[in-house]
Order: sequence, then structure tokens, then C-alpha cells
Amino acid sequence: MHWSAVERILGLLLMLFSLTMLPPAVVALIYGDPGLVPFLVSSLVILFVGALAWLPVRNARHDLRTRDGFLIVVLFWTVLGITGGLPLVLSQNPEIPWTDAVFESLSGLTTTGSTVLTGIDDLPYSIRFYRQQLQWLGGMGIIVLAVAILPMLGVGGMQLYRAETPGPVKDAKLTPRIAGTAKALWYIYLGLTIACATAYWLAGMTPFDAIGHAFSTVAIGGYSTYDGSIGHFDSPLISMICVVFMLIAGINFAMHFTAWRSRSLRHYLQDTETCWFLGILATLSAVTLITLMATSYLGGWGNTWHHAVFQAVSIASTAGFTTTDFAAWPVFLPVMLLMAAFVGGCAMSTGGGIKVVRFVLLLKQGHREIIRLIHPQAQVLVKMGRRAVDERVINAVWGFFAAYIALFALMMLALMGTGLDQVTAFSAVAATITNLGPGLGQVSDHFGEINAAAKWVLMFAMLLGRLEVFTLLVLFTPAFWRR
Amino acid sequence: MHWSAVERILGLLLMLFSLTMLPPAVVALIYGDPGLVPFLVSSLVILFVGALAWLPVRNARHDLRTRDGFLIVVLFWTVLGITGGLPLVLSQNPEIPWTDAVFESLSGLTTTGSTVLTGIDDLPYSIRFYRQQLQWLGGMGIIVLAVAILPMLGVGGMQLYRAETPGPVKDAKLTPRIAGTAKALWYIYLGLTIACATAYWLAGMTPFDAIGHAFSTVAIGGYSTYDGSIGHFDSPLISMICVVFMLIAGINFAMHFTAWRSRSLRHYLQDTETCWFLGILATLSAVTLITLMATSYLGGWGNTWHHAVFQAVSIASTAGFTTTDFAAWPVFLPVMLLMAAFVGGCAMSTGGGIKVVRFVLLLKQGHREIIRLIHPQAQVLVKMGRRAVDERVINAVWGFFAAYIALFALMMLALMGTGLDQVTAFSAVAATITNLGPGLGQVSDHFGEINAAAKWVLMFAMLLGRLEVFTLLVLFTPAFWRR
Ligand SMILES: [K+]
Ligand SMILES: [K+]
Repeated sequence: MHWSAVERILGLLLMLFSLTMLPPAVVALIYGDPGLVPFLVSSLVILFVGALAWLPVRNARHDLRTRDGFLIVVLFWTVLGITGGLPLVLSQNPEIPWTDAVFESLSGLTTTGSTVLTGIDDLPYSIRFYRQQLQWLGGMGIIVLAVAILPMLGVGGMQLYRAETPGPVKDAKLTPRIAGTAKALWYIYLGLTIACATAYWLAGMTPFDAIGHAFSTVAIGGYSTYDGSIGHFDSPLISMICVVFMLIAGINFAMHFTAWRSRSLRHYLQDTETCWFLGILATLSAVTLITLMATSYLGGWGNTWHHAVFQAVSIASTAGFTTTDFAAWPVFLPVMLLMAAFVGGCAMSTGGGIKVVRFVLLLKQGHREIIRLIHPQAQVLVKMGRRAVDERVINAVWGFFAAYIALFALMMLALMGTGLDQVTAFSAVAATITNLGPGLGQVSDHFGEINAAAKWVLMFAMLLGRLEVFTLLVLFTPAFWRR
Repeated sequence: MHWSAVERILGLLLMLFSLTMLPPAVVALIYGDPGLVPFLVSSLVILFVGALAWLPVRNARHDLRTRDGFLIVVLFWTVLGITGGLPLVLSQNPEIPWTDAVFESLSGLTTTGSTVLTGIDDLPYSIRFYRQQLQWLGGMGIIVLAVAILPMLGVGGMQLYRAETPGPVKDAKLTPRIAGTAKALWYIYLGLTIACATAYWLAGMTPFDAIGHAFSTVAIGGYSTYDGSIGHFDSPLISMICVVFMLIAGINFAMHFTAWRSRSLRHYLQDTETCWFLGILATLSAVTLITLMATSYLGGWGNTWHHAVFQAVSIASTAGFTTTDFAAWPVFLPVMLLMAAFVGGCAMSTGGGIKVVRFVLLLKQGHREIIRLIHPQAQVLVKMGRRAVDERVINAVWGFFAAYIALFALMMLALMGTGLDQVTAFSAVAATITNLGPGLGQVSDHFGEINAAAKWVLMFAMLLGRLEVFTLLVLFTPAFWRR
């Protein structure tokens, strides 16, 4: 482990993060709300801590290795998650305890969007802006993590996307490639945000709401500046704009990168994962629509179609926005959408869940097992598009899935141990490990009323989901820390 | 497909099955209850149908191939399940509709032990005996299925146990090996049953109860001749006898086979799966005991220890007997035990679940994935005992697990579609796919009050679980039926 290099990066990161406290401070100035001091103080404190970490090791410029990569990625989210809670703790109105502040901050940064706050409409503008911005920053971090770092680390089968790196990655140099890719992706991310904000604004949102919701839409985050979420605007047009940008943000950003460079859209339809992603969402929308119409739960077609499509896309893509109380929808709809969130978005998108590509690989591998039973001697390759998938990738995907389920079960039991009921425990873990946001039962509206211990378990679940399980899990093994 | 050979075996099977209606008829005679006519009529009808199927093809003695094996195994359970409901339908008191009769019969034969009947204490003796006998016959079928047939078919990684068959199995001859192995296993099974019945009888049960409960104990079935299950006897001694025989029946019968031939017990402790099985049950018992004591739910030590150990072993081994209303136990206990049932018994035992050996392989493979992340170039073998496990077996186990989870989710949604609530739907599928028996929520006592559609879904779940998922799934693929 190159401790000093890790410390240097973390110090830089904190100093950079301290700057992100300034836009909310500006918002506080504009609206004359009480958030000005907390955000300025937080900015200075975080800058100071960052500088304190950075100064003694500012010349430690080792090339980073695989292990350092795991550590940095985990520290990135945990340290920013904790320090991100600072302005919330410092704000006097409302008074937010540490656990809640860190929960809200981590839930924002991991783009989970589970909230412990209520009465969001009445919060100071600066805090309402800050929450949205946390999601946007988190989304940005995820894109870089997913596209530039995870494939190098080989987590959960993501070496599938390591086309450019021939040979094994042991001790491959991580640093140079990240910078180049990251820059291009940030431009795309920024462009999408601007387009989304403009569309919201043209559809009738105030600039404040438009920017705020654009932040949480492209991040597939789900935070809103209102308790009523997207439902607050009561506008099918705004709902559909949101759907379009959730779809775009749920697709592999490497596809957008290609679209940007080649000025073509054809490759989207040639991509297996994109087709599955859109196909799954279309199917879910149709099933939701048909069930709602059959039960007349929302009345006629006019009031049903946009809620059905919006909630299907919002939950299954793991955005977690709501236009209506979908958790009370009839028969299997809430549970079905929650299960769909386990599939989630595409790899290298801001979406959560186990990712569509892994789901497709699991299906194809399951199919191969059946063929092998019938024709024991047949050699069957699992393919994505035209390329055969390496057995090692398939093994990693299986491992990912099994670890996901096992940890899910353990965390659900832990939550029940803190006193939650079965439905709440199940859906709370589901909503956080998939980085979806809203749950069912006691946590369908917000996570404010559950106990502190349960909140910490759920924060761990958010991190697990966002860090593709193994990035975090690996730190808990003795082998990782052995020289 | 050798249709005529399949038909011949099925006809023989039915004729043999018709004989199993005679013992309950004898019981009806002894106790002078109204079951005599239904069982005699059923016996004749089944004999007639069997003969009708057998006569035209009685000379069709083809060697059976792999595909025929899948078909026969599935038909074995479905046809016996359906015809096994006949005496229940024919009995006038109580009146049992077809769906319930088939559910009860299939639940017996698959050793699931979920019941739709209430007031079991007041049923005719013949029916009470018949239910227990169904489980015993089912358990016998499972042992043969698991030890002799599944390894040949290579279902769900069970080729792990195909030590004696060198080379690929395509079109391997199934017939000769089954007979020899089956005979030895039946002796062991019979011996265990006699030992168990004797122990129960010495502990105070009537001969009727002792034989009945011995039947369902060695089959890890869970049916009882009383609504109160083992709790009816209110005897810690009987509970502990039951625990001992559930443990024995939950261990790989090939281990007992070795013990019988080598007159030694040492190999049990050298077997990875047995050690894990016993270790898991010990851990669960301890956690259950500590939690119950900490919450004082059952009062002091004297009333707690035997309920704790009994329910932990009974649920986690998937027997499903109860001595108390464990579904109402505090905090996470009911859900934890239900989750433990997913691990279940050892391979080639009468226990259900995904089987301990698969669970251990999943853990080991998960651990390997973590080591690979840290040391990307390392070659890590997954071992059971001292033997490296073939990658193909590992793939099959992954496939099994993923299919299990996916089908679980689909069936849970289907149940909610029929109107069940989330907790009931979850635990009903869990209790049937693991062949456990009792669930939580609306189905913690019995399955009588849920709708008929839900019952058929659950019957499918029982079959899936009992047939190790893929044996049944493979029949739904076009590739299986293609020439
Ligand atoms: K989200
Ligand atoms: K059972």
C-alpha cells in the first residue's frame, strides 16, 4: 500500500470537495436564508482538514497500484459521505443529528436518494440545493468509478469492459488512463445536465427547481426539492422529460461517448445491454399500465398512463422519483418494481442494481446450463453481441450475484434485529443496496423514523451497492492487508 | 425419447403405487374408520390405470438415456402426486376438493409437509396414517433420485458425486446402476425408520404415532398425526429423539452407506459438507437460544432450551415440525430460520433447500473471487475436502442458485397476483421451494385458506425444489424436445 500517495489523493479530494460548499452558500446569499454560515464554515473546515492531510505528503507521487485503487475508491465515498454531513449538522434550522446528516449525505453521494428529512419544501433553499448537488457530484464520481476504475480492478466481471488493457492487470498503472477518460465523460455528463435543466425550465419549472432536478435526474438519484418529488409539479410533460433523461442516464456512458465521437446513434441498438435495458423497462411499463387499468386504481387512461410509465421507469432504473404513492399500488406492482430495481441500470451508467449486463449474463449462463444438461458434450459459449465472454468474467458475475444475495439476507436480519418488521426490513435493504431510494412499508415515504442502528446498516448497504459489493468487501479480508 | 419405455416404467410404478393404498386400508380395518372403501377403490383404480399403461408396452425394454431420465423423474412425482390425491377425494368425511387433495398428496410425496387440512386429530386413522406414509415413500424416492439418478443427469452440480462414472455421460446407460445402489439405500432408510419408531415408542408414543412420526422424521417431511405436531407430546425427550433423527436424515445417505459397509464413523467428521451442516445447525441453535433467553420470550431456561434447539434444527433442516408457534418468535428469529431453510440439508439426504454442499461451494467461490481481485494472476482452485472441484460443477452450482432465486421472485409475484400479502407470499414460496413446510404470516399454521390458484403455484414450487430446479426446468425448453 502506498499510504502517502493515498493520503495525498484524499487530501486533494477534500480540498476540492470544500469548494462544492460554495454554490450552496451563494444560494443562501441569493435567497437570504440561514444556510450561509454553515456552508462557509463547512467549506473552511473541510479545506483545512484536506490541507492538513495533503501538506506532509504533497510530493508523494507514486504510481497507484490495484490495491491502492480499492482503498481510494472506498475512502472517496466514506470520507466525502461523512464530511458531506457537516453543513447539515451545523445548520440550526432544522436541527439534524449526526446519524441523519451522514445518512442524507451518503444517500445523496451514492445517488441512492433515501431521505431522512421531512418537510423538504420548508427547508432553507441552500440545503435543498445542496442535497441535489450532492447527487450530481455522486453521479459524476460513479461514472469515473465505473468507466475508468472498476474495469481495471476487475470487480464483479467489469473486466468485460477492459478492452484496451491487454494482459493481466497486476500492478497496472492506474493513474494516466483515468484523467483522459474522466474529462470526456464529465463533458457528456455536464452536457446532459444542461439539456435536462433547460427542458425542465421550458416545461415550466423555476430555474432553481430545473437545475436541482436536472442534477438528481442525470445522477439517477431521486432527491427532489419537494416532499412530493416529481409529483409536486403535477405535469405529465415534466414526468416524460424526466423519463427520457432517466433512460439516457441509465445507459452505459461509454455508448454516449461513442455517440459523441462518431456522431451516430446506430450503436445503441447494436448493443445487447441497451436493448435489454429498454426492453425490460418497456415490458414493466406495459405490465404496470395494464394492471392499473384492469384494477381502475387510478381511474381512466388519462390519469393512468403517465403515472404507470413514470413509476415503472423511475423505480426499475433505480432513480426513485415518485409522482404518486406507488407503494400502495394494487397486487404485485410495488414488489415487482422493487424487484426490477435489482436488475437496475446498465453498467457504467449512474443507475444502481446488479446492472443489466450482469442480469443478461446470468440468464445466458442459466440457459447454457440447461443446454449442457440435454447435450452434456456440447461446448457452449456465452456471448455478448458477437464476442464470447471469458469464463473468468462469468465466474466473477456469479460471485457478485451470490455475495449480493447473501449480504442482502444478512443485512435484512440485522435490520429486523433492530426492531423493524419484515416488509420494512426487506424493502429498506432492497432500496439501499440497489441505490434506488424509496422503500415499502414503514420506509415508503422517508427513512426518518427508523432507529439509528438501522440507519447505519442501511448506509453500509448503500456503499455496498454503489461500490459493486466486492470493492468494499475486499477491504474486510486479511489477504488484502497482508504484504 | 423412448416413449414406450417411459410408459412401461410409469405403468409399473402406478401398479406398485396401488399397493401402497393397502396399509391405510388395513389401518381403516383395525380402527373401524370410514377410510376402508376409499383406499380399496383407489388401489383398484390406480392398479387398473397402471396396467392399462403397461400392457401395450410391456416388452419395451430399451436402455434408458439421459433425456428419458429427466422425463421419468418429473412424471414420477407429478403422476404419483396427482393419483395420490385420489383416496382423499373419495373420502366423504372430511370432504376434500381436488386441488386440496393433490396439494396434500404432492406436499407429502415431495416431503414438503405443508398441509391444507385442519383438525388432523379428528381425521380417520387411515388418512392420518396415509399422509405419514406418503412422506416416507417420498423420502425413499428422493434418496434414489439424489444418489442414483441426479449425479448421472448432472443436475445442479450433482455430477460432483459421479465418482464411479468416468468420462462424459452422454447416453450413459442409467438402468443397471440404479437397482444396486437403490437396494442398499432402502435398507439403510428402512433401518433408520425402525430405529426411530422404536425410540419414539420407548419415549411414550403409541405404536400408531411412533410409526407415523418415524415415517415423516426420516423423510424430513414434517407431517404429523396431530395439529400440534411434535408439540402435541409436550416431551423434551421426544423432541430430542426427533432432533437426532432429523440430523441423521439430513446427512448425505452415501455417508451412511459407507458407515454401514466400513463399520466406522470417522468419515463423517472428515466430510466437509457434514461438518458444515452440523456447524450451521449448532450456530443457529445457539443464536436462537440466546435470543430467546435475552428476550425471556419463553420464560426461563427449562422451557426454552428444547424449543430453541428443536425449532432451529427442524426449520433449518427443512423438516418443518413444530413444538411451539415459532412464527411468532421475536425479532429476526422466524425470518432467520426461514432463510436457513434455503441452505437446507446435505446433498443426497431427504432434506430440502439448495443443499449445504452448494452453499459451501458458493462461499468458497465467493472467497476465490476476492482473492482474484487482490492477486489477479493467482490460480486458485476451489476444493472440497482434498479434491479440487471441476469448474463445470461450479458453473452448474451458480446456475442452480441463480435459477432458484429468479424462479423464487417470479412465483412470489404470481402469488401476490392471486391476492396474497407480501409476507405470506414470500414465506409460502420459501416454505415450498425449500420443501420446508410451514411458512409465516397467513400460512404459518396451514395452507388451507389461500386460494386455489396460489395452491397450484405452490405445488409447482414444491416440485421445483424437490427436483433440484433444472430437472423440471429442462422440460420447458424447446431444445429438450427437439430430436
Ligand atoms: K436512486
Ligand atoms: K419438510
